[in-house]
Amino acid sequence: MKIALAQINTVVGDYQANLDKIAAFTQKAHAQGADLVVFPELALCGYPPLDLLYRPSFVRACEQAVRPLLTRVPEGIGVVVGGIERNPAPHGRRLFNTAFYLENGQVRTYHKQLLPSYDVFDECRYYEPGRAPLVIEKGGERIGVTICEDIWHVLPELRYAHSPMDDLAREDVSLVLNLSASPFSVAHDAVRQEVLMRNGARYGLPLLYVSMVGGQTHLLFDGGTRAMMPDGAVTAQAPFFEEALLIVEKKGDRWEGSRAPSVADDGDRLRRALVMALRDYFDKLGLNRRAIVGVSGGIDSAVVLALAAEALGPEAVMPVFLPSRFTSETTWRLVAELHQRMGATYETVSIDEHYENMLRQLEAHWGSLPGNVTEENIQARLRQTILMAYANRENGVMLNTSNKSELAVGYGTLYGDMAGGVSVIGDVLKTQVYQLARAINRAHDWIPEKIITRPPSAELKADQKDTDTLPPYEVLDPILVMLIEQEMSVEEVVQQGYDEGLVRRVWGMVQRNEYKRYQFPNIFRVSDRAFGYGRRVPIVGRWV
Amino acid sequence: MKIALAQINTVVGDYQANLDKIAAFTQKAHAQGADLVVFPELALCGYPPLDLLYRPSFVRACEQAVRPLLTRVPEGIGVVVGGIERNPAPHGRRLFNTAFYLENGQVRTYHKQLLPSYDVFDECRYYEPGRAPLVIEKGGERIGVTICEDIWHVLPELRYAHSPMDDLAREDVSLVLNLSASPFSVAHDAVRQEVLMRNGARYGLPLLYVSMVGGQTHLLFDGGTRAMMPDGAVTAQAPFFEEALLIVEKKGDRWEGSRAPSVADDGDRLRRALVMALRDYFDKLGLNRRAIVGVSGGIDSAVVLALAAEALGPEAVMPVFLPSRFTSETTWRLVAELHQRMGATYETVSIDEHYENMLRQLEAHWGSLPGNVTEENIQARLRQTILMAYANRENGVMLNTSNKSELAVGYGTLYGDMAGGVSVIGDVLKTQVYQLARAINRAHDWIPEKIITRPPSAELKADQKDTDTLPPYEVLDPILVMLIEQEMSVEEVVQQGYDEGLVRRVWGMVQRNEYKRYQFPNIFRVSDRAFGYGRRVPIVGRWV
Repeated sequence: MKIALAQINTVVGDYQANLDKIAAFTQKAHAQGADLVVFPELALCGYPPLDLLYRPSFVRACEQAVRPLLTRVPEGIGVVVGGIERNPAPHGRRLFNTAFYLENGQVRTYHKQLLPSYDVFDECRYYEPGRAPLVIEKGGERIGVTICEDIWHVLPELRYAHSPMDDLAREDVSLVLNLSASPFSVAHDAVRQEVLMRNGARYGLPLLYVSMVGGQTHLLFDGGTRAMMPDGAVTAQAPFFEEALLIVEKKGDRWEGSRAPSVADDGDRLRRALVMALRDYFDKLGLNRRAIVGVSGGIDSAVVLALAAEALGPEAVMPVFLPSRFTSETTWRLVAELHQRMGATYETVSIDEHYENMLRQLEAHWGSLPGNVTEENIQARLRQTILMAYANRENGVMLNTSNKSELAVGYGTLYGDMAGGVSVIGDVLKTQVYQLARAINRAHDWIPEKIITRPPSAELKADQKDTDTLPPYEVLDPILVMLIEQEMSVEEVVQQGYDEGLVRRVWGMVQRNEYKRYQFPNIFRVSDRAFGYGRRVPIVGRWV
Repeated sequence: MKIALAQINTVVGDYQANLDKIAAFTQKAHAQGADLVVFPELALCGYPPLDLLYRPSFVRACEQAVRPLLTRVPEGIGVVVGGIERNPAPHGRRLFNTAFYLENGQVRTYHKQLLPSYDVFDECRYYEPGRAPLVIEKGGERIGVTICEDIWHVLPELRYAHSPMDDLAREDVSLVLNLSASPFSVAHDAVRQEVLMRNGARYGLPLLYVSMVGGQTHLLFDGGTRAMMPDGAVTAQAPFFEEALLIVEKKGDRWEGSRAPSVADDGDRLRRALVMALRDYFDKLGLNRRAIVGVSGGIDSAVVLALAAEALGPEAVMPVFLPSRFTSETTWRLVAELHQRMGATYETVSIDEHYENMLRQLEAHWGSLPGNVTEENIQARLRQTILMAYANRENGVMLNTSNKSELAVGYGTLYGDMAGGVSVIGDVLKTQVYQLARAINRAHDWIPEKIITRPPSAELKADQKDTDTLPPYEVLDPILVMLIEQEMSVEEVVQQGYDEGLVRRVWGMVQRNEYKRYQFPNIFRVSDRAFGYGRRVPIVGRWV
């Protein structure tokens, strides 16, 4: 008995392409002698469809894709694939998150039972929970089907009262499939591994886990497809961050297949995730376009430039350097060195004349200049105007270069450096940006050491340093993780040994800047709590 | 027997102020002889708390507010007030959406049973549904308590299998309270009235409905507090768009009180909702600040300017006119006339020199100018840069002036006219902007007729008209309502008698511009499907 685990990358709403890909992987699995091929959750419609699920035409299209797929399943192989199905009952949510089992011209369905409704997940918005198990009898096996969260009841903090695995155990199954779409974060694979191990141990059953791969708007998927035995052994493992067809075969009481290496280092993991994210963002939007990157001589823009060059090819990236009177000689030199190491050309467009003219004009209106953040913001917004002119002219996409630390405390100019078609490192803390830069240099050696080691500065006034305004990032970042990712109160962070005045100031900055983040571009999510869909906070309110 | 219905405006997270307000209204109700005073859903913590509910400290603060409130309830009166409570069970969501009944030093609770999880509502994200009814026995009445959605099962399209009202009917109650936080839309009061009527008729019970009032980030609350008798008669009605204490008294088998007039006209309704929204946005953020409005001589900015002047007072509004070479003489004249009629002064800051300099610089880099939207966008972004400089200098808030029609089709410049601290009319279709302008002029006669009647133009190139690019708004707006608010497919809209090529083009524009809307400021919601939290659409995807 052979089972093929198809770790594929589908596109939301592109039913024809998704169908073709599923059929092609099925053919390939059949050719390799597989008796069954398993695809990820919602592979048919793409993930996450979000409110496209409110559109009856979108749902009909998914249902109507099942029959044509059935005709393309060769004899002798079964297909298990995720999609959506309408709930025929007059009550309850309109849809089911469904696994379709197709074989011999027949279709059977399973409906997901545990519906995550936290963080980036809103499954209770769309789906009615299923109630009944599905068991596939094939090749002497009794194979239970689950979808993603169905096996996550082993984490008590998720507080599920019911375990679909209990039902399968009562059905005396010999093997469990899990169709997943489990979003990447730096820490996620360890949690996933833990969930699979606990299930294997608790139920004494082998699990075949199939997850999607690819970038989908804000969510990234690293794959992670594997076979988990009851003793905790991973006996097959698909490569991360790419499509794969992992064949597992029953040998004795174990399912075995090839084992691709894991990605051990956080910096490498971030690099591969974000490269994949950028590639898919452009590909799936059908953008045969250039990425515009404003380079500043700092580490953030250097990292974004390098990721874009790796993802899209250096020729698809247009770096623009926009110096002003406050740009240091070091910056000029490092920008040149960065591009030289990358073998790239860049444009230099000074904002100085525009800045001077605008100051002169405003001074005439105002009598004097405020001498505060007003002037700094003008520079950032002039840069944005020029970068967006490049983007418009090239029909390209300007990449945002803000990191999560500055975004959290509002250290950035709305419509200035906070602009961009998509945010590449908006979920990467500054201290992680350094890890990412090191990982990039291990692969390409593009970023000059001095860019990595120089003190961060916005260069919006003379001799400015980030630390004029902010605590050092080694202090700030752990505070941000506690306040934002761990939802701790100021008091609770102070109990961890941090200065109360500092923590209170940081929390004030986080709160005051919700209105800015509300307007921030789509962020590639790489943490367990990214700004964006997964974190919904009132702008108006007085919670301190 | 007298019951006081307290239609109040609380602030998310400002427990002390909310508590003080609830205590003050309780005192007032007591002084007027009320036996019971009823407050809206989640009045204690403010609505909507969103993911602040994930913060244990926020939840503890709400629970800890109940006891101090209890000590402030005078003898002889009971208080029913909405708040949150933790779910002590190890399974299920962590919280209950709760009605606290406080009297004689005792607290009893009711947990909301029907949890809306659609549109702007994500209650399944936070709350476990309650299971048990609460009946208050007082003054010979058996009073059942419900919270908002609990009585909305009468709309079959919401597909609730269970009706908490059935339980109350079995409990033989004589009166039903409903604590609500039901967001405003132009059409909402008619739906609310229908829901109350159906409940009254089906169960033969009088209903006392108490809703919150005020603006809360994206959500507006018009109040709508009333007494509904089983025969469909509204026997008491609080004024709309303001705080009120509505006393109802039992006379025979009817509950009666004063009856404030409804707001009949959609334009007036929009005007009062948006004025309230602006006032609360500034008040609740603690912004004793000016609103900066870029005036263009068009109807959108004139309407936003007028709403801001009515909401904040004319002295708190700073209009800035930013002409260019493409600004017509008519525009110059109309801007002057608008301010003259309003008795307001404004600043005039030309963008022309900046525009010319930037074009010259870019032409030097590029060899020639693209002659497309690139140049138009530069103008819009230079205006934004100057407006934001005003906002920064004044420590003010720049108001966005985009309407929903242009936002839907992407007819606007990201970081240009799409910028602003908050969007005032981003949920108002262009055809509704005209209704709003008429309503403003009935109240103040501020907007010159010619601004209302002139053909819309962005004036970003010579002799430009919106209709060069877009269909007339009378044609566009109904198509947008069908595609967006009614989730119809292109085919379904065409079946309504619209040209297929046109509908397809509009739908293409709607879809292509998700990335722009993603970065749009917070919008005051006045329709049943606003852009923002209530509509979550993947940017990356290929659904046509």
